[in-house]
Parts: sequence; C-alpha cells; structure tokens
Amino acid sequence: MKIPYIKDMEEWKAGFEFYYPVKVRFSETDLFGHLNNTVPFIYFEQARIEFLKHLGFMQNWLQTSHESIPVVANLQCDFLKQVFFDQELKVYVKAESVGNSSVDIHYMGMNAGGEPVFCGRGTMVQMGKATGKGVPWTDQQRELLLHPALKIDV
Amino acid sequence: MKIPYIKDMEEWKAGFEFYYPVKVRFSETDLFGHLNNTVPFIYFEQARIEFLKHLGFMQNWLQTSHESIPVVANLQCDFLKQVFFDQELKVYVKAESVGNSSVDIHYMGMNAGGEPVFCGRGTMVQMGKATGKGVPWTDQQRELLLHPALKIDV
Amino acid sequence: MKIPYIKDMEEWKAGFEFYYPVKVRFSETDLFGHLNNTVPFIYFEQARIEFLKHLGFMQNWLQTSHESIPVVANLQCDFLKQVFFDQELKVYVKAESVGNSSVDIHYMGMNAGGEPVFCGRGTMVQMGKATGKGVPWTDQQRELLLHPALKIDV
Amino acid sequence: MKIPYIKDMEEWKAGFEFYYPVKVRFSETDLFGHLNNTVPFIYFEQARIEFLKHLGFMQNWLQTSHESIPVVANLQCDFLKQVFFDQELKVYVKAESVGNSSVDIHYMGMNAGGEPVFCGRGTMVQMGKATGKGVPWTDQQRELLLHPALKIDV
Repeated sequence: MKIPYIKDMEEWKAGFEFYYPVKVRFSETDLFGHLNNTVPFIYFEQARIEFLKHLGFMQNWLQTSHESIPVVANLQCDFLKQVFFDQELKVYVKAESVGNSSVDIHYMGMNAGGEPVFCGRGTMVQMGKATGKGVPWTDQQRELLLHPALKIDV
Repeated sequence: MKIPYIKDMEEWKAGFEFYYPVKVRFSETDLFGHLNNTVPFIYFEQARIEFLKHLGFMQNWLQTSHESIPVVANLQCDFLKQVFFDQELKVYVKAESVGNSSVDIHYMGMNAGGEPVFCGRGTMVQMGKATGKGVPWTDQQRELLLHPALKIDV
Repeated sequence: MKIPYIKDMEEWKAGFEFYYPVKVRFSETDLFGHLNNTVPFIYFEQARIEFLKHLGFMQNWLQTSHESIPVVANLQCDFLKQVFFDQELKVYVKAESVGNSSVDIHYMGMNAGGEPVFCGRGTMVQMGKATGKGVPWTDQQRELLLHPALKIDV
Repeated sequence: MKIPYIKDMEEWKAGFEFYYPVKVRFSETDLFGHLNNTVPFIYFEQARIEFLKHLGFMQNWLQTSHESIPVVANLQCDFLKQVFFDQELKVYVKAESVGNSSVDIHYMGMNAGGEPVFCGRGTMVQMGKATGKGVPWTDQQRELLLHPALKIDV
C-alpha cells in the first residue's frame, strides 16, 4: 500500500538516526492477540519527547513559567506488520521538515529483524501560551531539529 | 476465596446504591481474550469520581484555588469472574466507613446477569495542599458520604 | 489549518449520522491538564466498532470460526480544540467511501457546544484469515456501509 | 500509614532482588500533574511477567497448547510518594510465600533516590484450563519461586 508521506522508502528509512526502544507490554495487546492499534501513538509520543529532550527542547517546555509549549496538531500511523507481546521495537523519530513555527515529525517502528512494523508522522507546533499562536523557531532550534547530531549542551 | 474486607457478601452487596455504568472497550482486552486485570482500577477511579461529583465534593477539589485535594492512599481489587469485550457492567461504589479525614471506599463490578465480577476497596484522604496533612471532614461531608441519598444541592 | 481529507467542512460534517457518546475519563488526561493526544484513537476504535455492530458486521468478525477479520491499515487524527476532563463528546463515524475490500472510515469528535474538537480517518480492510488478502465486500455490505439507515436486521 | 502485608519494612525491602526498570510516560500522568493511580498496576503486571519469564514459567503459560495458565486472583497497591513524569523507577518483585497452587507476589516501586514510592501485592494461581481449578506447583517450581537465584536454564 502506498504511504502518502513517504516518497522513497529506502531513502526515508535511511534518514532516521534517533530511536526510543520499547518492549510490547501485556496490557498493550488486545483480544486479537496482537498489539492494539491505539498503542503505537503512545510509542510515538514517547519517542517524540525523548527526541525533543535529546535536543534540549523539552526541558524548557515543561517549565510552567516558560512562555511556549509544544502542541500536536495531527498524528497518523500506517500499520505494516502485526506486532506481538514482548517484541522489542526501535521507535525511530526524525524531523522531516521544519516550518516557521511547526515541524513535521516522522516515525518508524522497527522489529528485531529490521523490518518496519508501523510508520507515521505528525505536525507539532511551538505555541505561545498567552497568544495561542505559533512561536517561530530560532535558527539554532531549526538547526538542531534538522541536524540532531549537532546537538550542543545548553 | 475469602475477601478480607467483606464480612457478609449479601449484606455487603445490599449496601450499594450508586453505580457508574461502563461497557468494556476493545482496547481494554488483552491477548488472554478478556478484560486486562489493570482496567478495573480505571473503572474504580471513574466510579469514585462520579460518586464524589454526585455528593458535590469533586467540584471543589478540581478548582486549582481550593485548599484541599483528594488523595488515594491505597487501592485493591479481587477478580471474581472473567469479564469480556462489550459486556455492560455496573460499577457500584459506596463509602463503607469514614475516618477523621479519610474514607474507606468500596467497589463492586456487576455483570448484566447480576453477578459480581470484581470487587475492591481503597482509602481516600482529604489532604491539605499546603500542609500535606489530612483535613478533617465536616459533619455535613461525613453525613453525605454515609448517606448519599441525603444529598442536597450545594 | 487545512485538513487534507476534508474538502468542504460543512458538507463533511453533514454526512455524519451515527455517533458513540463518550465522557472524558480522569485517567485519560495528562499533566498538560487536557485529554492526552493518544486517547482520541481509543474513541475512534470504539466508535468504529459500535458502527460496525450497528451494521451487523462486527458480530461475524468476532466469531473465531469466521473466515475474515477487519484490519486497520492506517489511522489519523487532527486535533482542533483542547478537550478537558469530564467533557461529554459525541464521536461521529461514517464510511466516506468504499473500495473493493476496504473502506475509508471518517471520524469527528464534537463537544457539547456542537464544535468539532478533533477529526480523523482511517482505512479498514476486510481480510481473509487464511489468505491474508482482502475479501471483497458483498453488494449488501457495500450498501450498508454507505447507507447505514438502510440497516436490516440480519 | 500501616501497610497490612508488611511486618517489618526494612526486612521486607531486603527480600527483593529482581526488578523491572520503567520510566514514567507522559501519557501515564494525569491533570493532577503526577502518575495516575491506575498505572502502578500496569507496572506490577510487567514486573510480574518479567519475573516469571526469568524463572522460565511464562514461556509455557503463553503456549496455547499448555494445560495451565496464571490467573491473578487479587491485586493491591499502597501509594507512598508522588511519582512524576520521566522519573526512572525500579519495580521490584518477589514471591513472598508459596501456597499449594498459588503464590503471594509482592511489589515495590523505588525512585532514583532509593525511596519506595509505592508497594503492593497480589495472589496469583496456576489454573488448569480445562478444570478451572488450581494446579499444584511442582517442587522445582516452588524452589524457583522462593529462590530465584537458583534458576536453572530449562
């Protein structure tokens, strides 16, 4: 099946570097005997947060005094292969593209055999708490999102 | 199996009046094909909150300016019968006994056939936000907890 | 923000009829004080299942002897307005279009004020258990999906 | 507060050896800003399963052909300290005592500072699938439960 946000699967896969490891919990399965379809979105949330912590973004956003917060505008997931209890997955995450105050974050869940089991994406916006409007990224933020390896300790 | 907090099952069952209706969700089942054991605690939380809203307690506690909050000190559940997807349950809740600033809340999940499928209990404390100590119930609160039918609109 | 699967919002909204009522649970909120972003997908799952039960489809699929099962190929959600604890939502669901063995199911969460708070869509496929391939809809199934009001008791 | 299933806290703590590490997820918090009270039971389930896998028990129970399954008869949790987003916990688990076909499993969640944040217990029974009755432990199973360090690869 064609996935609208992936032009070339191999190229797309190669763009990932950062991942969040997860092991499928018993309570995350359902009566069909596999991972319930709503759970990858929990994994995406954790992967995104770990990625943003890695970049040094999350720490500010979690301070109640901080003037902006990350807002998830949309999320989507394509289910490629069944996932089962106790499987160990790497949930990869990357910033695919960066807008003025938003970022298109992509996700890929990979099983121990190196096969993608689900993939996804979602728009996240840096929102001003008082204004309710997008807060533009600084140049440094933009650089970090697109080149996380450049991460400096701030 | 003997349940330590129930002396006489029939008498105990007869003490319930208020219930929260719930239908088992697909995502709440697990690969054993039945309701996952962690889910009744979610039902208990909802039943407790609906009960406390019914008494007029919850409204105050949810105001960020209010000086006290409800704190759950402990929770327990005994699993009596298997529960399956799509079953409609009544989750009964009552205040079994009231302490100085705490209350012993009891729970019973009942299936459409009138059979208890799980039961439970837990201590909840009215805690002062600033002090971190128990805030004694007023006489009116104590009356409402033990005789919810006396509920007056406040 | 433009939602790619909605051409005309008013026309799209008018196409819904069936809904699943839900009240936001305490455990479904997160530390940002609102409904956690992963929860609408749980509501979608329930709304879809209730819709399919209403059409008489789900009953067959849940029989272990049945030769086909519903498979969710993808899911997406756009978050329009914040949703808070205890809010009552109607989660509308409809079959937007029907393929050979798949169906594009659309969703809309609406608050008590009649405002859409989130919307979404996802492809579901009728899959043969043995073959792992799509099982074409019968004409009757196709009719029911597109015109649920025609539902006959089967 | 007195915890009925703990006689001597220091002695009780010293009896733990095996633990399951967990980091609090964002979706596991609630609007009170801390870990939702229903989540420790998910951690207990995972800790119990990892413990039983470590002992070599779980592998058999997950085989659909196996004649017995583990059944959770009851579960309880005492909440000692607030737990927050992103905290890393060790969820300790041990068999406190072993009955004929049941085992009393105890749990302790410990924060990075070495403080217990919640503790709990629950009865698990080895149940025959066909009979619905308890299946007595073998001597080897009993030994492994009480002395997990003796674990042999089976």
